[in-house]
Amino acid sequence: MKVLIISANRFEDSELLVPYYRLREEGITVDIASLTKGFIKGKHDYEIEANIAIADVRPEQYSALVLPGGKAPAALRENKQVLDAVRAFFKAGKPVSAICHGPQILISAGVLQGRTATCYKSVAEELKAAGIDYQDVEVVVDGNLVTSRQPSDLPAFMRETMKKIRSR
Amino acid sequence: MKVLIISANRFEDSELLVPYYRLREEGITVDIASLTKGFIKGKHDYEIEANIAIADVRPEQYSALVLPGGKAPAALRENKQVLDAVRAFFKAGKPVSAICHGPQILISAGVLQGRTATCYKSVAEELKAAGIDYQDVEVVVDGNLVTSRQPSDLPAFMRETMKKIRSR
Repeated sequence: MKVLIISANRFEDSELLVPYYRLREEGITVDIASLTKGFIKGKHDYEIEANIAIADVRPEQYSALVLPGGKAPAALRENKQVLDAVRAFFKAGKPVSAICHGPQILISAGVLQGRTATCYKSVAEELKAAGIDYQDVEVVVDGNLVTSRQPSDLPAFMRETMKKIRSR
Repeated sequence: MKVLIISANRFEDSELLVPYYRLREEGITVDIASLTKGFIKGKHDYEIEANIAIADVRPEQYSALVLPGGKAPAALRENKQVLDAVRAFFKAGKPVSAICHGPQILISAGVLQGRTATCYKSVAEELKAAGIDYQDVEVVVDGNLVTSRQPSDLPAFMRETMKKIRSR
């Protein structure tokens, strides 16, 4: 099984590293895609290699998608290839997990209509303005979609993400 | 179930946060002990609250011990209460998982005689000098003891740590 993480520079380090290591603990192959291939750096100065450029991502090869937060989503949401990849996961009904600022990408991809979700507190108003039923709780599961607010929600975020992935 | 993490300032952030969130994903209560109660700061500037002072730790209340790395073990290994707590876990045969510089604490506690273990590369010579069978692999499991070398070993480290904890 392969899972895709899409991120970029200024990612929230724990929100990328915790899912990355957790998925690999389970024996899952994890690809990290970014705007270009190569090392990306987190807000806390962790560096990790994006082993694939978003232009080369084939969503059909992956079982699930994880979108960490930080400042990365602000850049990613402007990229058509990122949004097309996200839409492909939704269209196929595959698990998509987004935390913190990660849901900004989902707003831009236009995949949240009629959905219940959560996100970082500073993103909440934007989420509501997009017509989404925002819940201020540690994790919201709505069909294929798992969302959380912040790093301290990572235990609940990963618990629900792993359930979704195991069920496939 | 309760698990204890012992750490201090200048901890290796991912080596504390990944086990902390992983254990809590499993519904396990995690106490973080340090030299004094209060916030401790990692090398990458993450702050986390040590909710108990080492002087107040009662090892009999915990099912397992995790020792993250970074610069924290250099300070912790000088503290008698830390070493006494570590010895109590070994005496009771409870799982002890140490990564990176974490095994330095085990050397000072004198609990590694005749053991096979691994650690961060810069600690390897010290481990060998203490008579331990050092292995340069991502994880070594020897009885109750689980050791790993570095952050990139966290998937294997947590896989084996969770096996040990689940078996109790």
